[in-house]
Amino acid sequence: MTDLQEPQSRRARRVRPGASPVEELPPRSLSYRRMTNPFTPQGVFTEDQVEAIHEAALTALEELGMKVLLPEARHLFAAAGALVDEETEMVRIGRDIIEAALAAAPKRIPIRAGHETRDFVFELGAMTFVAGCGSPNATDLDEGKRPGRLVDFENLVRLSQHFDALHAHAVYVEPQDVAHNLRHLAIQKAQLTLSDKFPNIMSRGSPQIADSFEMIRIARGVSPEAFGDEVRCYTIINTNSPRLLDTPMAQGIIDFARAGQLSVITPFCLSGAMAPITVAGALVLQHTEALAGIALAQITKPGAPVLYGSFSSNVDMKSGAPAFGTPEHVKATLGAGQLARKIGLPWRSGAGSASNVADAQAANETQLSLWGSMLAGASVCVHATGWIEGGLSVSFEKFITDMEVVQCMGEMCTPPPATADDLGLDALREVNPGGHFFAAAHTMTRYRSAFYEPLIADWSNFGVWTENGSKTATERANTLWKKIVADFVPPEHAAANVEPLDAFIAKRTEEGGALPIS
Amino acid sequence: MTDLQEPQSRRARRVRPGASPVEELPPRSLSYRRMTNPFTPQGVFTEDQVEAIHEAALTALEELGMKVLLPEARHLFAAAGALVDEETEMVRIGRDIIEAALAAAPKRIPIRAGHETRDFVFELGAMTFVAGCGSPNATDLDEGKRPGRLVDFENLVRLSQHFDALHAHAVYVEPQDVAHNLRHLAIQKAQLTLSDKFPNIMSRGSPQIADSFEMIRIARGVSPEAFGDEVRCYTIINTNSPRLLDTPMAQGIIDFARAGQLSVITPFCLSGAMAPITVAGALVLQHTEALAGIALAQITKPGAPVLYGSFSSNVDMKSGAPAFGTPEHVKATLGAGQLARKIGLPWRSGAGSASNVADAQAANETQLSLWGSMLAGASVCVHATGWIEGGLSVSFEKFITDMEVVQCMGEMCTPPPATADDLGLDALREVNPGGHFFAAAHTMTRYRSAFYEPLIADWSNFGVWTENGSKTATERANTLWKKIVADFVPPEHAAANVEPLDAFIAKRTEEGGALPIS
Repeated sequence: MTDLQEPQSRRARRVRPGASPVEELPPRSLSYRRMTNPFTPQGVFTEDQVEAIHEAALTALEELGMKVLLPEARHLFAAAGALVDEETEMVRIGRDIIEAALAAAPKRIPIRAGHETRDFVFELGAMTFVAGCGSPNATDLDEGKRPGRLVDFENLVRLSQHFDALHAHAVYVEPQDVAHNLRHLAIQKAQLTLSDKFPNIMSRGSPQIADSFEMIRIARGVSPEAFGDEVRCYTIINTNSPRLLDTPMAQGIIDFARAGQLSVITPFCLSGAMAPITVAGALVLQHTEALAGIALAQITKPGAPVLYGSFSSNVDMKSGAPAFGTPEHVKATLGAGQLARKIGLPWRSGAGSASNVADAQAANETQLSLWGSMLAGASVCVHATGWIEGGLSVSFEKFITDMEVVQCMGEMCTPPPATADDLGLDALREVNPGGHFFAAAHTMTRYRSAFYEPLIADWSNFGVWTENGSKTATERANTLWKKIVADFVPPEHAAANVEPLDAFIAKRTEEGGALPIS
Repeated sequence: MTDLQEPQSRRARRVRPGASPVEELPPRSLSYRRMTNPFTPQGVFTEDQVEAIHEAALTALEELGMKVLLPEARHLFAAAGALVDEETEMVRIGRDIIEAALAAAPKRIPIRAGHETRDFVFELGAMTFVAGCGSPNATDLDEGKRPGRLVDFENLVRLSQHFDALHAHAVYVEPQDVAHNLRHLAIQKAQLTLSDKFPNIMSRGSPQIADSFEMIRIARGVSPEAFGDEVRCYTIINTNSPRLLDTPMAQGIIDFARAGQLSVITPFCLSGAMAPITVAGALVLQHTEALAGIALAQITKPGAPVLYGSFSSNVDMKSGAPAFGTPEHVKATLGAGQLARKIGLPWRSGAGSASNVADAQAANETQLSLWGSMLAGASVCVHATGWIEGGLSVSFEKFITDMEVVQCMGEMCTPPPATADDLGLDALREVNPGGHFFAAAHTMTRYRSAFYEPLIADWSNFGVWTENGSKTATERANTLWKKIVADFVPPEHAAANVEPLDAFIAKRTEEGGALPIS
């Protein structure tokens, strides 16, 4: 404000007195590692309707119950007072059991990753992302669609490690070139030696879970006694809708609860197929199944860390094909957020696309469902990048183009600066009508860090873009993901885990590994 | 609830008693013609910061002023008490003038289109969309990029007429094959004979505006005296940032205000180039210029219909290239919404993409900016479909893929049904664990109308998709837009306008038409 009368030329000179000192300005630095959702959570139901959905789920649990295939889980439910019919394997769960479970479940879950800079907290209001996962296939522009291989999985671990806006790992693609009895060992090794982020375990029975816990314990240098003191890994529990909890999933809930590790109880409710055709009805079923799983965890060990889970979308009623990123998917996610807030638990959502190729449909469906998750206030959004064909493939190129959107959402968490100086009245005084702000002092002191720098977006003009080969974003993404993988250096402390883990893997391989339980 | 004890088979039979009566269920019918934004408006600034931006704009208007090139506009401002320097053409506008203008500007603007079913209202909370416009070029997969032609413009009018979720027209592409002096006549004819939606006039000087008003009056069958009684057309006023109002734009504001027609006062503020590099600074400039334009309209005729306008994004600081659908664009839009609500006026936003091709980048950028507009509570979002290359081209294929997103946003306006019956407890009772809901009574009575039917999304599995030619969404969009154009039938009452309009055009052509004013 003291420079008002100073001529424009002198002002401009003063901020550039010598050899481009502005080049020494620090580049943009923005961490996506711990993000708070900037938006007011949005809903689609009235408070009364949310209450009615919750009540309907409690009624379904009491009147209809869940079919629970694992005897041990039925015994745990029975001991807690549930009505169990051993012949039909049906378990009817009173609302007192659910209420006790919801009271016991922690509302804030600190996560201990492989390095303190990767630690974060699952709670309402926090915002985290996980790349697309659970796919049997991988696909990219070079090799096309193929059954998932270990190298594909490892490369997706590398990509997920690379981007700060992805917070936890998952089994992105199934490494089908590794034998069933050894696959879980290879999956853990990749997560623990290439990355220091929060690892995932697939719940495929107690033997594989025990091996995986042991590998995480070895990698993290934790004693067997101390392992359960902090949340060091998680599993995703999918109920078999409608109303069935199968053996490996029940074992997962029990094993993770006993070990103080995190279960994400996620019914996968497709409206019109395995769930009622209405969004409200699908959410009643989702809520029923999620509450049953949460109850089993809390019965096993009160205070066990759990996330409420939602991945409800709809099918095409002409073909029965699942669809994602639809208006119904977004509405279900918004409704799920209301249910999660009603019970006070952190929760997961899911994004995704049913497109068969990384095209505009795929981009639009994933982004639509990402916004649904963000506006619903999901604590973690799974399948945030790369997931196509309704989860049958992960696309390496779409991983990158979706990553751009996830990073843009991360940017939303930082409000624009708005001090008196940021408002730029001095800059307005400096630049007359007909002028421009490129060289204004206000610009020169900020230009290196003012804006998000795109990952893959190309803003060059048509001529330059044409000269550069007229490449689409998907083609550019192909170059970028391969460069990230080629340049990848695992964190030193993670890479140091190779030897002890290899020793464990050799021993377990000799012992025959562990087959999945079905 | 009275059927609880009824066996499942009988229940199923009862809803399907004969030859597929469910086929007689009405298909989904959802109007996107009048939409209310379902979301709580979101912001990026504190109330104090919004106040500070508003105050900074008032200070800029008082201290620095606007350069106003049209003498008549300067005289109007001077008569209202503004300080005018005729030599420099600078107009400094006191806050009393702005306050009076904001008090006079209507908060609710009913729109009278060519048919009552196309009427709507601009107000805070309403949500409308306009396709991408203002582009010199058109592009599609068949012909590639070329200078805009009249047939391209007409086809975009047809497409915009076809989709209910687009509410007003605009000059989508410049019909460069029509002479400058006659172009405005061809533009009006297309809007008024192919469509009954709310038409746009480009403000290229009073003579063209007068011709266009006359054509709308003829087409709508309104007397000269009654023309100004209702809002029958609109213009977009772009200030020349920073702080310059040129001659045709000032004429547009004055002519539209006198005729009781709508001006949308939209500074086009690119942070770092023609506006300060900060989002807050760009909004100070936007607010300064928009308030000046609003004031001129209200000085001309108190109560003149105006929309507050925002189209602020940023440039790439390496190249100076404009970018859209960036985090800064979204933040600027959210901040603009806060400013619009502060002054209580309905307002326009803008979506868009800087991609050179209808790819994943283009899809993602447009959708990101569409969500920004929706969450900011924009009364109308312009450039909602088809806009690429930062507005240098409209892509016919991207028009369709973006349209899918706009329709999905329209779907958000309808909350999911949640009566006791919708909750589906009966369906849960009907379908046992291991079963599915495809044939449940709850499904059969709803399946034709439960879900949004996609425009272009293909949810078939990989095998079927491959058999069908492995087409991307953009390729399918090429087929669809051509089919819509080929099948297009203009509304009868609009088509009936051809003859009187042709007579007017013949007369004006003979008289030499009207060149644009610069």
